[in-house]
Amino acid sequence: MINQMKGSRSMEFENAPRIVSAASVVGPKEGEGPLGDCFDLVSDEAEFGEDTWEKAESTMQKEALQLAIGKAHLEAWQIRYLYGGDLLAQIIATSFGGGAASADTPFFGLYGACSTCGESLTLAAMAVAGGYADYAAAVTSSHFGSAEKEFRFPLGYGNQRPLSATWTVTGSGAFILSSGGGGAADSASTDDISGEENDCENNLSLRKRREGKKSYVRVRGATPGRVVDMGVRDNMNMGACMAPAAADTIHQNLMDFNYQPEDYDRIITGDLGEIGQRILLDLMKEKGYDISKQHMDCGIEIYDKEKQDTHAGGSGCGCSAVVLAGMILPRLETGKWRRVLFVPTGALLSKVSFNEGQTVPGIAHAVILECPFSAES
Amino acid sequence: MINQMKGSRSMEFENAPRIVSAASVVGPKEGEGPLGDCFDLVSDEAEFGEDTWEKAESTMQKEALQLAIGKAHLEAWQIRYLYGGDLLAQIIATSFGGGAASADTPFFGLYGACSTCGESLTLAAMAVAGGYADYAAAVTSSHFGSAEKEFRFPLGYGNQRPLSATWTVTGSGAFILSSGGGGAADSASTDDISGEENDCENNLSLRKRREGKKSYVRVRGATPGRVVDMGVRDNMNMGACMAPAAADTIHQNLMDFNYQPEDYDRIITGDLGEIGQRILLDLMKEKGYDISKQHMDCGIEIYDKEKQDTHAGGSGCGCSAVVLAGMILPRLETGKWRRVLFVPTGALLSKVSFNEGQTVPGIAHAVILECPFSAES
Repeated sequence: MINQMKGSRSMEFENAPRIVSAASVVGPKEGEGPLGDCFDLVSDEAEFGEDTWEKAESTMQKEALQLAIGKAHLEAWQIRYLYGGDLLAQIIATSFGGGAASADTPFFGLYGACSTCGESLTLAAMAVAGGYADYAAAVTSSHFGSAEKEFRFPLGYGNQRPLSATWTVTGSGAFILSSGGGGAADSASTDDISGEENDCENNLSLRKRREGKKSYVRVRGATPGRVVDMGVRDNMNMGACMAPAAADTIHQNLMDFNYQPEDYDRIITGDLGEIGQRILLDLMKEKGYDISKQHMDCGIEIYDKEKQDTHAGGSGCGCSAVVLAGMILPRLETGKWRRVLFVPTGALLSKVSFNEGQTVPGIAHAVILECPFSAES
Repeated sequence: MINQMKGSRSMEFENAPRIVSAASVVGPKEGEGPLGDCFDLVSDEAEFGEDTWEKAESTMQKEALQLAIGKAHLEAWQIRYLYGGDLLAQIIATSFGGGAASADTPFFGLYGACSTCGESLTLAAMAVAGGYADYAAAVTSSHFGSAEKEFRFPLGYGNQRPLSATWTVTGSGAFILSSGGGGAADSASTDDISGEENDCENNLSLRKRREGKKSYVRVRGATPGRVVDMGVRDNMNMGACMAPAAADTIHQNLMDFNYQPEDYDRIITGDLGEIGQRILLDLMKEKGYDISKQHMDCGIEIYDKEKQDTHAGGSGCGCSAVVLAGMILPRLETGKWRRVLFVPTGALLSKVSFNEGQTVPGIAHAVILECPFSAES
């Protein structure tokens, strides 16, 4: 059932798990960006009705998970295992009032910095493909306010940011994976998804389902990442810290599956930003691969650099998660893209590691996502 | 191959993964405790040759993992996936120079507070039983110095501790899981394990293997925990915070497997300590189960309360890990115990969550460990 691919680091799911629903919740700045219309829920204030940044992030994450569960026509108790995490120390956004606390479901807490979206999808896919769960959920979040406080300066300081810095996305993405389809939608009534149609590509999948066609994106395989440390120490240049890890994982993936870059419509990293992107393309060229035609970065897509003053791009566990839910999955569901390598990238550091002069190693977890209509289905 | 057990939260592995090796590394205080002789490596200083507590923890963890890999007669590259974590913000002990960095192997970073040992074993067992990995490793650590700094006060303050407080164990435990046996040991030569015999029960397993009998403890099943919040806010009384989560998971396990407490030789929690133990026994009685004969707590076992001034007991991700490696597995390997429910318990909090007045929810992940000679093998 599962092809372990000896001598590799990757796994291929013969019975590929499907992403039966996805949800994205973002803050106002993300709503004003180029992808604003694609998100399920845009808050008009970054506090999400709470009195601390941490609680705001928890509430945002809870909304994303509940929305994804609802979209899959499931009840929370039907989610067998939840895989989730965030950027905060001791992942409190997830554990306190966030996904883990609200769903009352067995919970595996994860920390992979901004790569956690890839980590959680990989583990959820392993659980489903391995027969451990009919439904598994993956949820991640980040929040600009809580992340600045956690890693850099409290917002009140108004410190100046170098152009290499990225802007932590206020957003949360949640995904429900299953070996079959969604809940009630599979059996009969689809009345409860009426009135949800709008111009956003995101809802094409709902329309497909309403027409009785199941168009779930499949997780074909995954290449879990390892810690890659090239000695970069600049926490205001995360792209440079993460690019070597992204190159390592992408290269491994291409070798393990015997793919060329053109076997993917897109190779989409999490939050390298513009500087990290240039480094990644150079590193891949050194390894003999030109991925400049396929490469895309969630952090570059999510903001309008000129108008939004976000410097190198967006970042955070929420960045890749909401871009996956809002843009990547709809394009796969409709067949616009047939195969995508989704590679969330993480920079491993803490206040303590930075203050003690440690480097900032990176890690990147890749998952192969395929359109429902591709030949191998 | 895998029995999902519908309507439950547990999983049962029909082809139960084996723990083919285990290693424990501890600090001097743990070496002076009642289990001191059972650990593989006792450092004579808590700094492990490093200049910060965080690096000390990383070095200790790296030693434990390398020792476990060596005991299994494997090379690091043969470990397909590593599951690990620690208590520090952004799990830097694991990511920086610890298990993840040293093994150069795909790494899933975990955070489950002191329950992380159970979380990592569960995920590693799922990977092996699901056919994703020939060998998977689980590693966790905690360090008194780094944990006090992370959660309470820098050691230099010399603050007074209430009797309900636990003492964070300086220790790391690592485990190699496989569907078959270990590496070279399975094929032929066992010369390289000569000279390791001593009086410690820990080495009985080595002797068994030398005699050509493979006596690996099996992971029969697991009951992943959920976040349980009873509203306790006292970070100096972790036992009270975690006991409800332990009761929830143990109760679920007994129901899911249709077991009575006496089906286990021991039900061993991670680090409830004396106060948490009393609460757990009461909560289980309320649920209709008397587990007082079976219950044991790693935190109570590891220190001599009278002589070592450790108050309610030991705690930390390293506590349950080193007691598992040093005491529990050897007793299962020799058949002294036939079946044990191992339930590492975690208290979810951070400096920020505590300072913002949040409660301290708990989580507990249980794994069923069986002796190699039991009937169902």
